[in-house]
Amino acid sequence: MQRPKILVTNDDGITSKGISTLIEVAKSFGDILVVAPDKPQSATGHSITIHHPLRLNAFHQYEGVESYSCSGTPVDCVKLAIYEILKGKPDLLLSGINHGENTSTNVLYSGTMSAAVEGAMEGIPSIGFSLANFSADADFTAAQWAAHEVIASALKNKIPLNTCLNVNIPDISVSAIQGFKVCRQAHAFWADRFEKREDQFGKPYYWLTGEFSDVDQHEDTDLHAMKNGYVSIVPTHFDMTAYQALEELKNWKL
Amino acid sequence: MQRPKILVTNDDGITSKGISTLIEVAKSFGDILVVAPDKPQSATGHSITIHHPLRLNAFHQYEGVESYSCSGTPVDCVKLAIYEILKGKPDLLLSGINHGENTSTNVLYSGTMSAAVEGAMEGIPSIGFSLANFSADADFTAAQWAAHEVIASALKNKIPLNTCLNVNIPDISVSAIQGFKVCRQAHAFWADRFEKREDQFGKPYYWLTGEFSDVDQHEDTDLHAMKNGYVSIVPTHFDMTAYQALEELKNWKL
Repeated sequence: MQRPKILVTNDDGITSKGISTLIEVAKSFGDILVVAPDKPQSATGHSITIHHPLRLNAFHQYEGVESYSCSGTPVDCVKLAIYEILKGKPDLLLSGINHGENTSTNVLYSGTMSAAVEGAMEGIPSIGFSLANFSADADFTAAQWAAHEVIASALKNKIPLNTCLNVNIPDISVSAIQGFKVCRQAHAFWADRFEKREDQFGKPYYWLTGEFSDVDQHEDTDLHAMKNGYVSIVPTHFDMTAYQALEELKNWKL
Repeated sequence: MQRPKILVTNDDGITSKGISTLIEVAKSFGDILVVAPDKPQSATGHSITIHHPLRLNAFHQYEGVESYSCSGTPVDCVKLAIYEILKGKPDLLLSGINHGENTSTNVLYSGTMSAAVEGAMEGIPSIGFSLANFSADADFTAAQWAAHEVIASALKNKIPLNTCLNVNIPDISVSAIQGFKVCRQAHAFWADRFEKREDQFGKPYYWLTGEFSDVDQHEDTDLHAMKNGYVSIVPTHFDMTAYQALEELKNWKL
């Protein structure tokens, strides 16, 4: 059997510890192509670059691995990989490992997960990985182990078509991890706040900040799984239709 | 009864014809606050700005309407409006009218729709409007009429909680419009392509381009409605869990 072609991307940038960890894991499963942002692109969601041209540069830090850094977003990276570099689809798309968790509604803001969702739209088996630790020097030991387990299982069992996996790993040791839980996306939110400051001319500027409000801690959610030491796996798709609202809206008689 | 407080935003920028049309429509329903990008922010999806500070400037083009231009994305605009300007939630959020349609999977790339989805996350009744014409000087007569009808109906019937409406208007005259159709998001895609060019130093750069592949033309989709002269209305939510895949994944025995 031919080794699978695996596309690796992320949103923290091509030099981050998370993506080098994921490249190491991916190597044992297939032949790797890395196309990842040349700078941090966190929270860029499903953004694509249409008002500026994109740059793509060969990147030589990963020995023996064909790699390119890209001036655009994670979704741009996926599109460039498929339509410009490979001129075809990889057998598997891996995104991450993100520095910081992407549970709950964070899936919408996350560049890491948007790359995986873009893969799902292309019909490519795709997985996004995130570790619940934001620091650049986070310990990825448990995440590396979990990613290996999930990839092996995905290659064996096949991810359903047009679906990707949102995998979050708690920031604990491998031995402390309780296992894997298939969950739904929790219904939780950011309680945002802006820090207002003044520049050197006395003009205001704002930094987005805030706290995550984990209101939905039902047993079937990714937040509950993570809080209890499990790796959470949410099958994620791109159909945002609120089917349960269709009948109600039809009664509006517009 | 107090007049509702209506937040108006978009992704084409605060000076676009689409948003001035929407402001005109909104005026007859309530008191308006405009917070919109200071430049085009199309296809920025659910992107938020966390690596740069944001600027917010009073904008005086819309007489008698409190307006601010913002250096960030449409979702940044919604967050700034709620957490910094209003210090509370508006009664209604309107986004658009977008220059170009946002049917099908375009909902994921669209800044216009992401602003509406952000509103839904905040529990605000929210509607995104898009006209199927990309030109800056498009004729918004039919879109203006359709927006008025939908807003009136939404205020009377109430949009289900944590749901927003994705409203697309075909580029035809009011008299040619066949009516309104409540639909699901079509399962269609972009067949992307990159145009490779060389800069003045002979180095390559890439423009994202491509054609929309409207493969899913089932009768219950937004694409089918639009093609047949109807205004399409898709109830849209932010739960991206692929519920139909949960059981299958649980059998993986990870």
